[in-house]
Amino acid sequence: MRVTVSRKAHFNAAHRLYRKDWSDAKNDEVFGLCNNPNFHGHNYELIVSVTGEIDPQTGYVMDMKDLKDLIKIEVEDAFDHKNLNLDVPEFEDLNPTAENIVVVIFNKLRARIHADMDLEITLYETPRNFVSYSG
Amino acid sequence: MRVTVSRKAHFNAAHRLYRKDWSDAKNDEVFGLCNNPNFHGHNYELIVSVTGEIDPQTGYVMDMKDLKDLIKIEVEDAFDHKNLNLDVPEFEDLNPTAENIVVVIFNKLRARIHADMDLEITLYETPRNFVSYSG
Amino acid sequence: MRVTVSRKAHFNAAHRLYRKDWSDAKNDEVFGLCNNPNFHGHNYELIVSVTGEIDPQTGYVMDMKDLKDLIKIEVEDAFDHKNLNLDVPEFEDLNPTAENIVVVIFNKLRARIHADMDLEITLYETPRNFVSYSG
Amino acid sequence: MRVTVSRKAHFNAAHRLYRKDWSDAKNDEVFGLCNNPNFHGHNYELIVSVTGEIDPQTGYVMDMKDLKDLIKIEVEDAFDHKNLNLDVPEFEDLNPTAENIVVVIFNKLRARIHADMDLEITLYETPRNFVSYSG
Amino acid sequence: MRVTVSRKAHFNAAHRLYRKDWSDAKNDEVFGLCNNPNFHGHNYELIVSVTGEIDPQTGYVMDMKDLKDLIKIEVEDAFDHKNLNLDVPEFEDLNPTAENIVVVIFNKLRARIHADMDLEITLYETPRNFVSYSG
Amino acid sequence: MRVTVSRKAHFNAAHRLYRKDWSDAKNDEVFGLCNNPNFHGHNYELIVSVTGEIDPQTGYVMDMKDLKDLIKIEVEDAFDHKNLNLDVPEFEDLNPTAENIVVVIFNKLRARIHADMDLEITLYETPRNFVSYSG
Repeated sequence: MRVTVSRKAHFNAAHRLYRKDWSDAKNDEVFGLCNNPNFHGHNYELIVSVTGEIDPQTGYVMDMKDLKDLIKIEVEDAFDHKNLNLDVPEFEDLNPTAENIVVVIFNKLRARIHADMDLEITLYETPRNFVSYSG
Repeated sequence: MRVTVSRKAHFNAAHRLYRKDWSDAKNDEVFGLCNNPNFHGHNYELIVSVTGEIDPQTGYVMDMKDLKDLIKIEVEDAFDHKNLNLDVPEFEDLNPTAENIVVVIFNKLRARIHADMDLEITLYETPRNFVSYSG
Repeated sequence: MRVTVSRKAHFNAAHRLYRKDWSDAKNDEVFGLCNNPNFHGHNYELIVSVTGEIDPQTGYVMDMKDLKDLIKIEVEDAFDHKNLNLDVPEFEDLNPTAENIVVVIFNKLRARIHADMDLEITLYETPRNFVSYSG
Repeated sequence: MRVTVSRKAHFNAAHRLYRKDWSDAKNDEVFGLCNNPNFHGHNYELIVSVTGEIDPQTGYVMDMKDLKDLIKIEVEDAFDHKNLNLDVPEFEDLNPTAENIVVVIFNKLRARIHADMDLEITLYETPRNFVSYSG
Repeated sequence: MRVTVSRKAHFNAAHRLYRKDWSDAKNDEVFGLCNNPNFHGHNYELIVSVTGEIDPQTGYVMDMKDLKDLIKIEVEDAFDHKNLNLDVPEFEDLNPTAENIVVVIFNKLRARIHADMDLEITLYETPRNFVSYSG
Repeated sequence: MRVTVSRKAHFNAAHRLYRKDWSDAKNDEVFGLCNNPNFHGHNYELIVSVTGEIDPQTGYVMDMKDLKDLIKIEVEDAFDHKNLNLDVPEFEDLNPTAENIVVVIFNKLRARIHADMDLEITLYETPRNFVSYSG
């Protein structure tokens, strides 16, 4: 009887899509406006989904307050009101595309969620573009 | 060629999270504000998803009007404007967490949906917290 | 150059619509399912809108963090995870309809917002029903 | 490390649910108001989800601009501001139920997405009714 | 102490924007794709807002169930699953633009709402385009 | 018979809240995390509302395609994928708070909308914070 519990969260950040090892021309060609050297930004909306057995004592898969606190520590405190390229170590040499961000968030939370539970992360970069990853 | 058809529904209810066999102190420790003995409440948003073959005659997996009526009888009439702890027999001895509610709804609808079809229930307790269960 | 700044907030509460001075029959006739003596509940969504001049120093009408904190103290701490009829003094003798709730919230916040600023409160009782009041 | 990238799109169309080979009485019985011979219509909301490996060069599973352009050519230009029954060849002899529409869209896009990638289409016919198909 | 109460509703309809007294060329020039002679359609989302005094007996400006029933009779039964040009008498000689539809709905409801109350109608033609009218 | 027509639009941008003429300490005290010298960013959602008479010929207050194009030229091309502080001349010496951005957008569009029409701009900085201005 495995149930999935999901929690939404939110962070605002600046980023720029480019590779340091590419020429400006190639970065412009591949990443277009997203390669603005002065950065642009997004309100990232996050959904963290944890799947596991219902604890017969509490009726919870996981206390949502614990999940909320974990997201705050691992994601919001680390990414909110930050420049992903300049302020977040994981993206020092990794292009902060939505795909790479969702994998980074998954890996940070995977290490903190009990191994018996499955984890899936969904990340909205805009209301029209989103990505998801489950390991 | 299996397609999933989904229908959203809605019910408003009061509930309290606690176990009769626990002390007040333990209930407070585990369930916090959700253990208010005077109850609190939610607008529960429900998504019922049925997966099956498209009927080549009608072009339907299932007539959405039938699904809407089934949800009304089994879920809305039973739960809407109710106190889940006091008015709904399934929760007389079951803590009405979102996880337990989604399993109860699944079991009620599973008995009424053709066995060849798969069923998944998603339940939003708040816009930020939701659960899903597919048996 | 008066600009309106708005902040959304949220609280979950139980309530029952009825008048103590009416018979059960009359309460049932007027309030229907909303008169369940065991209560039902809602996720109330709140929008607080403050209109004033932009401070030329900060570029703010009002610091949104201050507004967020004010809503937390006056509304969320007072109403969230509560039974409006039993736990909130303002509704001891006042029927907690959406209309009466929005006036109570307006009056609580009006006393805390600078008199040069206009205030409007919008309250969603469900995604389909909402009310607003500006004094 | 397979990630799913999703893009939302939109088209407005008229349609009528009926079978040419059924009597009016039978069409009315099965399709009710949806069998209005003068048609009715919807704002269809579409989610196209592509699952594949992240390209280590770009950090993209697929350039979202390419996906947006592909949806424009294959879906929006073909369906938007159209009468599905009369203007869209795929529905000349196929009842344009949401289920049949989602399969048609899947087949059009499946032919244009790299075979190593998985594809899922979700189609909202109304905010309360939606379907999905992944082949 | 005037409070505004609002109720959301919904109807699906086909329409075509054109004037019978204009040439095809002029209709195409002015209305573009919206002049498809086979029609297109929308999920129209409606918000009906009524402003009045709170009745001190009930705590209601107006019973939302009465407002819901009124919208059903005057708007949903008249417009839902209809072709606005062909099935709705008000548009026999009136171009069913969102602006004209909102005025027609206002006039239908204005006649049924108590004269002491103000009325405003908001109509979403798509999630990105909407109109409002208050007489 | 004045009707309001509204169009939603969207731009993604980076910004930083601070005054060049204040010390770092004062900027931190007033603007907190929003004063990150490396910038952060948002998905800004915009609603442009124009109020005027319905043209009896077209049934339009204003052709929504013209309004869409005007928003693209004046707002989206100027602000989307930009750093508001560094790339947008209006904010060279003006702190890009939501309040100041909404006034700048109003002024740009006011000059392009017919003087007989009223204009209101609403700008969402996040899903929970928004501002509006009507001159």
